[in-house]
Amino acid sequence: MAFQLHEKFRLFTLNSNEKLTAEIAELLNCEIGKTSVSRFSDGEIQINIQESVRGCEVYVVQSTSQPGNEHIMELLIMIDALKRASAKVINVVIPYYGYARQDRKARSREPITAKLVANLLETAGADRIITMDLHAAQIQGFFDIPVDQLIGIPILFDYFKKKELEDIIVVAPDSGGLVRARKLASRLNAPIAFIDKRRPKPNEAQVMNIVGEIEGKNAIIIDDLIDTAGTITLAANALVGKGAKTVYACCTHPVLSGPAIGRIEGSAIKELVITNTIELPKEKQIDKITTLSVAPLLADAIDRVHNQKPVSPLFE
Amino acid sequence: MAFQLHEKFRLFTLNSNEKLTAEIAELLNCEIGKTSVSRFSDGEIQINIQESVRGCEVYVVQSTSQPGNEHIMELLIMIDALKRASAKVINVVIPYYGYARQDRKARSREPITAKLVANLLETAGADRIITMDLHAAQIQGFFDIPVDQLIGIPILFDYFKKKELEDIIVVAPDSGGLVRARKLASRLNAPIAFIDKRRPKPNEAQVMNIVGEIEGKNAIIIDDLIDTAGTITLAANALVGKGAKTVYACCTHPVLSGPAIGRIEGSAIKELVITNTIELPKEKQIDKITTLSVAPLLADAIDRVHNQKPVSPLFE
Amino acid sequence: MAFQLHEKFRLFTLNSNEKLTAEIAELLNCEIGKTSVSRFSDGEIQINIQESVRGCEVYVVQSTSQPGNEHIMELLIMIDALKRASAKVINVVIPYYGYARQDRKARSREPITAKLVANLLETAGADRIITMDLHAAQIQGFFDIPVDQLIGIPILFDYFKKKELEDIIVVAPDSGGLVRARKLASRLNAPIAFIDKRRPKPNEAQVMNIVGEIEGKNAIIIDDLIDTAGTITLAANALVGKGAKTVYACCTHPVLSGPAIGRIEGSAIKELVITNTIELPKEKQIDKITTLSVAPLLADAIDRVHNQKPVSPLFE
Amino acid sequence: MAFQLHEKFRLFTLNSNEKLTAEIAELLNCEIGKTSVSRFSDGEIQINIQESVRGCEVYVVQSTSQPGNEHIMELLIMIDALKRASAKVINVVIPYYGYARQDRKARSREPITAKLVANLLETAGADRIITMDLHAAQIQGFFDIPVDQLIGIPILFDYFKKKELEDIIVVAPDSGGLVRARKLASRLNAPIAFIDKRRPKPNEAQVMNIVGEIEGKNAIIIDDLIDTAGTITLAANALVGKGAKTVYACCTHPVLSGPAIGRIEGSAIKELVITNTIELPKEKQIDKITTLSVAPLLADAIDRVHNQKPVSPLFE
Amino acid sequence: MAFQLHEKFRLFTLNSNEKLTAEIAELLNCEIGKTSVSRFSDGEIQINIQESVRGCEVYVVQSTSQPGNEHIMELLIMIDALKRASAKVINVVIPYYGYARQDRKARSREPITAKLVANLLETAGADRIITMDLHAAQIQGFFDIPVDQLIGIPILFDYFKKKELEDIIVVAPDSGGLVRARKLASRLNAPIAFIDKRRPKPNEAQVMNIVGEIEGKNAIIIDDLIDTAGTITLAANALVGKGAKTVYACCTHPVLSGPAIGRIEGSAIKELVITNTIELPKEKQIDKITTLSVAPLLADAIDRVHNQKPVSPLFE
Amino acid sequence: MAFQLHEKFRLFTLNSNEKLTAEIAELLNCEIGKTSVSRFSDGEIQINIQESVRGCEVYVVQSTSQPGNEHIMELLIMIDALKRASAKVINVVIPYYGYARQDRKARSREPITAKLVANLLETAGADRIITMDLHAAQIQGFFDIPVDQLIGIPILFDYFKKKELEDIIVVAPDSGGLVRARKLASRLNAPIAFIDKRRPKPNEAQVMNIVGEIEGKNAIIIDDLIDTAGTITLAANALVGKGAKTVYACCTHPVLSGPAIGRIEGSAIKELVITNTIELPKEKQIDKITTLSVAPLLADAIDRVHNQKPVSPLFE
Repeated sequence: MAFQLHEKFRLFTLNSNEKLTAEIAELLNCEIGKTSVSRFSDGEIQINIQESVRGCEVYVVQSTSQPGNEHIMELLIMIDALKRASAKVINVVIPYYGYARQDRKARSREPITAKLVANLLETAGADRIITMDLHAAQIQGFFDIPVDQLIGIPILFDYFKKKELEDIIVVAPDSGGLVRARKLASRLNAPIAFIDKRRPKPNEAQVMNIVGEIEGKNAIIIDDLIDTAGTITLAANALVGKGAKTVYACCTHPVLSGPAIGRIEGSAIKELVITNTIELPKEKQIDKITTLSVAPLLADAIDRVHNQKPVSPLFE
Repeated sequence: MAFQLHEKFRLFTLNSNEKLTAEIAELLNCEIGKTSVSRFSDGEIQINIQESVRGCEVYVVQSTSQPGNEHIMELLIMIDALKRASAKVINVVIPYYGYARQDRKARSREPITAKLVANLLETAGADRIITMDLHAAQIQGFFDIPVDQLIGIPILFDYFKKKELEDIIVVAPDSGGLVRARKLASRLNAPIAFIDKRRPKPNEAQVMNIVGEIEGKNAIIIDDLIDTAGTITLAANALVGKGAKTVYACCTHPVLSGPAIGRIEGSAIKELVITNTIELPKEKQIDKITTLSVAPLLADAIDRVHNQKPVSPLFE
Repeated sequence: MAFQLHEKFRLFTLNSNEKLTAEIAELLNCEIGKTSVSRFSDGEIQINIQESVRGCEVYVVQSTSQPGNEHIMELLIMIDALKRASAKVINVVIPYYGYARQDRKARSREPITAKLVANLLETAGADRIITMDLHAAQIQGFFDIPVDQLIGIPILFDYFKKKELEDIIVVAPDSGGLVRARKLASRLNAPIAFIDKRRPKPNEAQVMNIVGEIEGKNAIIIDDLIDTAGTITLAANALVGKGAKTVYACCTHPVLSGPAIGRIEGSAIKELVITNTIELPKEKQIDKITTLSVAPLLADAIDRVHNQKPVSPLFE
Repeated sequence: MAFQLHEKFRLFTLNSNEKLTAEIAELLNCEIGKTSVSRFSDGEIQINIQESVRGCEVYVVQSTSQPGNEHIMELLIMIDALKRASAKVINVVIPYYGYARQDRKARSREPITAKLVANLLETAGADRIITMDLHAAQIQGFFDIPVDQLIGIPILFDYFKKKELEDIIVVAPDSGGLVRARKLASRLNAPIAFIDKRRPKPNEAQVMNIVGEIEGKNAIIIDDLIDTAGTITLAANALVGKGAKTVYACCTHPVLSGPAIGRIEGSAIKELVITNTIELPKEKQIDKITTLSVAPLLADAIDRVHNQKPVSPLFE
Repeated sequence: MAFQLHEKFRLFTLNSNEKLTAEIAELLNCEIGKTSVSRFSDGEIQINIQESVRGCEVYVVQSTSQPGNEHIMELLIMIDALKRASAKVINVVIPYYGYARQDRKARSREPITAKLVANLLETAGADRIITMDLHAAQIQGFFDIPVDQLIGIPILFDYFKKKELEDIIVVAPDSGGLVRARKLASRLNAPIAFIDKRRPKPNEAQVMNIVGEIEGKNAIIIDDLIDTAGTITLAANALVGKGAKTVYACCTHPVLSGPAIGRIEGSAIKELVITNTIELPKEKQIDKITTLSVAPLLADAIDRVHNQKPVSPLFE
Repeated sequence: MAFQLHEKFRLFTLNSNEKLTAEIAELLNCEIGKTSVSRFSDGEIQINIQESVRGCEVYVVQSTSQPGNEHIMELLIMIDALKRASAKVINVVIPYYGYARQDRKARSREPITAKLVANLLETAGADRIITMDLHAAQIQGFFDIPVDQLIGIPILFDYFKKKELEDIIVVAPDSGGLVRARKLASRLNAPIAFIDKRRPKPNEAQVMNIVGEIEGKNAIIIDDLIDTAGTITLAANALVGKGAKTVYACCTHPVLSGPAIGRIEGSAIKELVITNTIELPKEKQIDKITTLSVAPLLADAIDRVHNQKPVSPLFE
């Protein structure tokens, strides 16, 4: 790809995705804007943009991944600084949109934090959101500014296609993930199944029953994100118990918190395929995990937005 | 139930749900506010509130069911009139929230009409929404005002429980409906299945494959709404083909547009259980259809809001 | 006129004014943007913009004429879709702005629907309004975005000037229309008169008394819109009764609802001159009616806005 | 009238209408809130509210009459102070709403100052407007908060009725004032006429032609406000020239700026009847002028708003 | 003090000030509302309000002290939950308002984070702020909702008054703190001095010169907050060098981050007097530090707001 | 300086700073936009923009100096007119931002008028503020639009540097002005002192005590603005009393209201150096006063904003 950037283009990174932004910058053949994002002694964020952004079309890359609150505040403060420094357009690139699971009142008197964060971003001054695989597509509607939601399934599909597996079945780890499983299955021309379970408390999982024909199949479990990996590892073991030949797992967003890595290592999962929307620290990069880069996709999206070409080829 | 209303309570109805509002008023033992909602010769809506609402806590009942655009505009104009007439609090009771299927950009350059309507309601002056079974729970987050979302599953469950059916299986008509099926199944202590289909164009449906064990079961298909009934009737027939003993269907919102009634009559569905969130015209009230009233639920919710008691018992 | 359009110019039409938009497009020598505006089976509007509008300066043509609520909702949904599709500027061309007669609280507890619709348009995302002959000029102030209000009197004047009538008197059909009558009269160098009537109920009219010298004159009754034509036909008959030689009538907006066409045919009106801000269905195009096109005026206005030239020559 | 005020009621006055507010307070049998509204040496306004307003329902009386900009700023600053001092509801009583003649773009690139002022009041924190005889009724729609517009015609009518004049004709001084003339005429059971003039420049007037039968009549010219009195005095003289027996004039808002008093004294007007929405300085209180008080009307309106009784009897 | 609370009063605490809130609750003789504020495995905040707040007047106590970003997000999410749960009024009690030093653009392209946080609080749904000793009084103006700013100087003054020190001089540690020093000095009837220094980088300090007569005096250095204690300890040493008899220090907000405690212990400061607006962890509670409680002040303020009595006695 | 302006650049002046704008226009080598800002007979402002601004980047110069309320209203009305006339960007150049001393609640129930005015400017439609030496830097944070605050100290410094005075001491007239004094002192490499006074009532001043070494020094008193000159003249006299050799005074904003000129003439001040952010009427231009022009600074700032070059060199 040969990208063409105008003089007033600026790409900035904050602290969550420095490597990914570096990849994007290399693909776009541009510099990353000079800025310092540090902490005062008491932990307050200090942002210092070290070059003029007056009249510029700015792209800020920041996933709101762990530590999510720090990353959200960094992003809001950066947007405030850009707005007051007379940036013309502030595009916020959020490869992983955190708090997305708090997208409705599951119980009484709960917040809808995914909406709150959308409101905060608009209040701070964001003009457009570029993001990937929102936990629920409806989160687009939490914004009144344009949202370009890119999808990771084609990247995952390309990877599995090259494996030339036979007798594939795509498995949703819970009843909410069936639509996503259907999408990958359609590309792989495969049937689908799902795990019918109840989750008694948050971050716990209890596999109950596999609905679908698993016997002798190569199962690929797909989810938008994997957090503690409780659900998916129990599912993998259950699938093997039901006669699955091998079990792969994949997701766009590798949250992988708490016991996740240990559980994956100890599970029946042969390979876990993820992307780099969240930067995986060294100690979590185990052999079972294969990481695919979303940098080409994001670079393409930024170029299309910047040059006012349709972004639709990237999310249809 | 014995409800206690304060002097400044007012209940109004618009044109979509006059019978339901009358039921609610009877339960609450109150009058329906005097208002005339008519049309000028060119079809423009003329609203005339015929009693003072100054300082009142108002409840307006209106589903945004077919004709949806007329009902939305009626509601917005009524809210504007109430606001300018110095109503203190405007509670909008929307038993069926239309346009809810347009809750995300399914394809490029599509509107998110469910969010647009939320914005319009807030702009007009709504202070609170009381609604039932939103197509997606995330629509709550489209609002920045409080939304009390009531659920119809307990009403449907009570009805099926009295039938004392054995060997029940709850069936989701598509991959998106599995979460809802799970909820009914848990109350009935039953397994679940789903229809794995693709929908090539809107309002068309193509049953593909049943995932789950149907043989000899009493199947209950559940959905939040039934529109043209294409999906659900093909599903019913496929379930019978797979050995289901009988097939029931149920939903909260009987949209039942176009060929729906004919399809249901000609299908393998033994009984379709609905509620009156949408007022079914006489000619659609066929024998196969059983209508349950949501009036006790809504009356209870209104009383709880009015008397500042928790509404949570009604949606948990 | 030779118009010059930039690459990012887009002209769209919705369902109210397809012919007028086609005329404008021909004058501007541009294509109409590809879009489909259809209905789902239950009447909900489905909009699909079929070409990229990213970074574009968009003009959408839609009168909010009968069926007004459908046309308003179409327009709001289209604006939402354009905004989310990253259109740069959304200019809304509303040749006829409906609900304009509800521009104040005429009685207690009435809505001000003309203001409500203005708020809805801004909430949806409109950036500028181009319209014609608002029922009250103050409606401009209902908006906080720029409004370019074009006037139809020059078009009507040109037509009557060519008739070379003598002894003209311009007549306002009611006390509110005198300012408009004065404007046409000044161009025709004619005196004015008015009909002093009371309107007991909406859509009814009762001619009471003609104030002014009618005897032997060629009377031209002018109004901004003609709805049921009750007022204007009674006025015409009364003018003939007072000795008027002939009676012409003219207006910008031919609402012509209900009994209007029959009344006009049966009245003393010799010729009714209208414009095409509202598309007249075939069955209403009777011989007595002469339709003048506002397409050249609107094309000129769009060109001026697009090329940032003053629009003032078109409304002064 | 016996008014009942709650403990948290507060009435404040600013500098434009101290006498009127004193009258209102006497009628309501309440104290005027302690506040000092003074100027710093450089003319900046200093407001000091000298009693607690926390949780109070506040009424502030201020016409935006001459010096209008000072009075607007006083009002905005007072509202800001009340809001920050935790007043519960801020009702703004504006007997005369200035800048009302700038209610539309009469020429290109003009402001709509009447809308701007409405926006400023809402931005500052006003919750409700109580006003009288807006220059155009549409100005109600400039607000998104409730506006209670009271009308002065009944007060003027009562005065003229007591005169027991015969052969009355009500005259509008220009084509825009006919609707108002019609309202007074209907109460007096009288015909109407109007002056057909053009106004070449602001504040100038040129009577052209009287449309209607004046001969031998007692003419009452009515307008919402009289500013320089150019139009109305020329009209009066023309009416006498056409054979009027006597000429009365009346208006709600006595702006009476510049040459007004001199013109009225030198004109054919026998008596000018005004109200005290604007406080007339001593030197302008000439014999020809009769002032009626709107205090009873405003006190009644405040009581109705305060006690949540319908205000509609006062504006219908 | 005997406080009177209504039925709908609710007091909640988040994680920053649990002890202070407990003290307040004891003084007010009320329960703290049941709520759980915990973390998901990936660090996202989970808030669960465990009792109805419908129609309640809520007070949430949370300092945005270290870890500031976590505390801000906790507060915003809590406000969102309260708003969606139909709380009537949400009063936010922020004993220490963090990020307050970022209250202006000190250099180019800096954010104004103190304003951003104000905007975020209003966007989330806060109705009133009760806070103490803002770093700059102008931060009140960052809000459009009422702000009740309480002051800590009387508490500090009472403490020093009891010491019955003679020959007091109050010292501002930098040129910006002189106004605060003046206030304490006036109460103590003492002269003032200040340290004329430049701060080359944030969190560093360089004492330059003492302006004022120190010789033989008991110096009390006062600041609104002490962060790394660099400035204040160098100041103390310099004062002793200039002949001060003893040096006391005091502040309202003990940020005391990084090297602060060590510096204080090693400095010439005899005693540091602070308040508990920020909860000091055990390991920082050294002998030199005396902590005064602001609970009586805050309880009084909450009672006054709740009972709509003037709060002014607490900040004048 | 050679400035380059684009075709769509427009510079307008209102009534407060006509001479300064003329200087700026000469430096920028551009015309001042044609506009008439006059008064109706009753004092209402009439603005008429006499050339097209459609699509233009507009700069309006207006200090909100005495008469401040008139100047604020002029500015708001002008912005409204520009917005409705489709100006693309409205930059408001406010050399002196009035009401800036009301930037916090100094006492209970006071307004924060500096914030109110900021809100009014944003509501009217301002896109950016360019201003000089705000009374408190925090006022930048009162705006959510970009504020470019220029500083006058370099201009004052250049003037004093050329004098080649020795033994300079910079004096702050009160405790709040010490930060500003420090900035000038650093450039002049001089020590600082301040006057420790209390101000019993607004516009009064009482010098109490000089803190710092004055004997034999050339004192330069600096403030951001001088209003009644009470403080500064008493300070000057006190400085001489303490042995100062000569006393200069300087400020950016010469408010100089009421007794100011007389006090300055009668005082020990040898020379008062001001700028022309406020236009000094002839009768106030006494010999002791030296006026420096800010036109080069403002022209430079406008050019930088217009050509999207960093403005930071002008305020750092």
